[in-house]
Amino acid sequence: MKVVLHTAWANVDRWIAELREQAPDIELRLSSDIGDPAEIDAALVWQPPAGFFEGMTRLRLVQVLGAGIDALVRSGVALPENVPLARLVDPLMSQRMAEYALHGVMRFHRRFDLYERQQQAALWERHFHDDPAEIGVGIMGVGEIGMTTAELLRKVGYDVFGWSRSPRPAAPVKVYAGREELPEFLARCRILVCILPLTGETRGIIDRETLALMPKGSFVINVARGPHVVVDDLLAALDSGRLEGAMLDVFDEEPLPSASPLWSHPKVLVTPHAGAITNPRTAMAIIVEQLRRIERGETPANLVDLERGY
Amino acid sequence: MKVVLHTAWANVDRWIAELREQAPDIELRLSSDIGDPAEIDAALVWQPPAGFFEGMTRLRLVQVLGAGIDALVRSGVALPENVPLARLVDPLMSQRMAEYALHGVMRFHRRFDLYERQQQAALWERHFHDDPAEIGVGIMGVGEIGMTTAELLRKVGYDVFGWSRSPRPAAPVKVYAGREELPEFLARCRILVCILPLTGETRGIIDRETLALMPKGSFVINVARGPHVVVDDLLAALDSGRLEGAMLDVFDEEPLPSASPLWSHPKVLVTPHAGAITNPRTAMAIIVEQLRRIERGETPANLVDLERGY
Ligand SMILES: NC(=O)c1ccc[n+]([C@@H]2O[C@H](COP(=O)([O-])OP(=O)(O)OC[C@H]3O[C@@H](n4cnc5c(N)ncnc54)[C@H](OP(=O)(O)O)[C@@H]3O)[C@@H](O)[C@H]2O)c1
Ligand SMILES: NC(=O)c1ccc[n+]([C@@H]2O[C@H](COP(=O)([O-])OP(=O)(O)OC[C@H]3O[C@@H](n4cnc5c(N)ncnc54)[C@H](OP(=O)(O)O)[C@@H]3O)[C@@H](O)[C@H]2O)c1
Repeated sequence: MKVVLHTAWANVDRWIAELREQAPDIELRLSSDIGDPAEIDAALVWQPPAGFFEGMTRLRLVQVLGAGIDALVRSGVALPENVPLARLVDPLMSQRMAEYALHGVMRFHRRFDLYERQQQAALWERHFHDDPAEIGVGIMGVGEIGMTTAELLRKVGYDVFGWSRSPRPAAPVKVYAGREELPEFLARCRILVCILPLTGETRGIIDRETLALMPKGSFVINVARGPHVVVDDLLAALDSGRLEGAMLDVFDEEPLPSASPLWSHPKVLVTPHAGAITNPRTAMAIIVEQLRRIERGETPANLVDLERGY
Repeated sequence: MKVVLHTAWANVDRWIAELREQAPDIELRLSSDIGDPAEIDAALVWQPPAGFFEGMTRLRLVQVLGAGIDALVRSGVALPENVPLARLVDPLMSQRMAEYALHGVMRFHRRFDLYERQQQAALWERHFHDDPAEIGVGIMGVGEIGMTTAELLRKVGYDVFGWSRSPRPAAPVKVYAGREELPEFLARCRILVCILPLTGETRGIIDRETLALMPKGSFVINVARGPHVVVDDLLAALDSGRLEGAMLDVFDEEPLPSASPLWSHPKVLVTPHAGAITNPRTAMAIIVEQLRRIERGETPANLVDLERGY
């Protein structure tokens, strides 16, 4: 089995070392020295250059090195037809994402955001806290990560519910589905957590209209992708008092440019795309399992539907 | 049954209203108009004035309005002999305290403290996060609140253990006991959470010596009482890099004086004694149950051992 790996990430050597260690029998080729493309069985990529897949006639798997395929789509590379495209689903990353969201939810529920601002003014003022069961937390996108998050939040006692594209009657939390049920979902969101994939349908979903449907004085946490949020609308909602706070992990441009007003907004917490940092060791173990599947002639897991966009 | 209530708290009216509503049959007397002290069956107090209990020959219960008796002891009031002294144990408050601690633990585990500081400098820099199972969290004091906290932290996956006065072999987490096992406990504490009662033995327990026994780069959360921490030693440990951060809810003097260096220390988060804010409704329900117990001739719950100090 011959595999090519391409990513411009600074830690690419860690990925290479993990693949070599975990599957010494697999022949690894780097994109700089690919040899005969017709020999390649699988490609492990993040944002490959134009024409990357040309001549890979034997290809049986395109495996993305992250949870979303938006970077791949944005790269504009021509994807090989009829080759399965898989994304990375690492339960440990889902846990880390859920922790990020839980931390953000508690931050707003218990008003640690306010206490931090008060500290800057040496101001001693207590804010009464409701029981978590009184705090409506809506998760936009209840897939792998969203559902893990919902379950963690439920364990801690929050009133959690979700929103997805298709109905999920058997889910452990109430799930609203589709655009029709979005207003009902939003009306219950004291805290909104966005964990959607970025697609044509979800781009800009957190905009003025959406924010207007949330209760006054609510909070937004975005740990999905920057373009889910219309930043100008978010800032306007924060400044009008409609929104009380936002915690943002992802941005239209990353690193967030130093000129962005988000850095210095008193009601915004900026984190550097740290919701979950991929661990090359556990991620590669999952990818190796994918390679074994195609080796055995099985269908790889976590396939992406390009039509649907995720 | 005749009950006297004394507290200088600003919300004393809420407490009075709750008692009147929840137990209309109980005759409530305020300390300003106590009538014949020999008629009083029970006293509900926080910090009563000197001589408060004089002449209360019929008294069958002194019920403190909070979880600790340190304020009562500090008030110096002479306590009636052979009258049961009870403290307030409200499971909802224990939950709120546990949430405070969980938030603090996640803050340090996931380095949100650092992200906040980075934001001030518009600095984009990610910090890798271990699995919570790799993070040793030591709870000093595993009583009502400490054990509730340990259980919540365990649910989220942390490596939790405790420290108490007496051995607790049957506890759901490993508990170290007494001064002899304190060094072993401290050596495991990536994050130390203090939830001890304030007694002669626990005053100043977080000092230079204690901090020196923790791993380098560790964190302290104090949600118990200010005097548990020797502030100068804490500041020295933060400045030397031995400690990486502290989250403090309680202080020697409250409100924390604006001149305190804690307010402006970049590695300290100050919160205004907000670990758990007593809810007069649920608290009074528990107190009424105490009154019913003495009415029925039963022993009240949550008795304090003055000798032991808690
Ligand atoms: N910040 C970070 O560090 C970080 C790390 C990892 C991932 N992420 C982001 O998290 C995203 C989610 O990952 P995942 O693994 O949970 O994805 P997933 O398993 O594919 O789940 C996607 C969820 O979004 C819902 N959804 C998709 N399009 C929708 C639409 N138009 N309207 C309503 N709901 C829609 C899906 O609904 P159905 O259930 O009906 O299909 C599903 O519930 C990734 O795409 C990535 O962008 C961020
Ligand atoms: N920040 C806030 O808003 C807030 C709110 C409520 C309470 N509090 C504080 O939290 C404290 C704890 O409350 P709680 O209800 O959990 O108390 P508790 O049930 O009496 O538990 C006390 C724990 O501390 C241990 N302990 C006492 N003295 C010790 C010593 N010398 N060495 C080692 N361990 C010792 C006890 O050990 P044993 O198990 O061996 O007895 C027990 O595990 C209160 O006293 C109060 O000061 C703060």
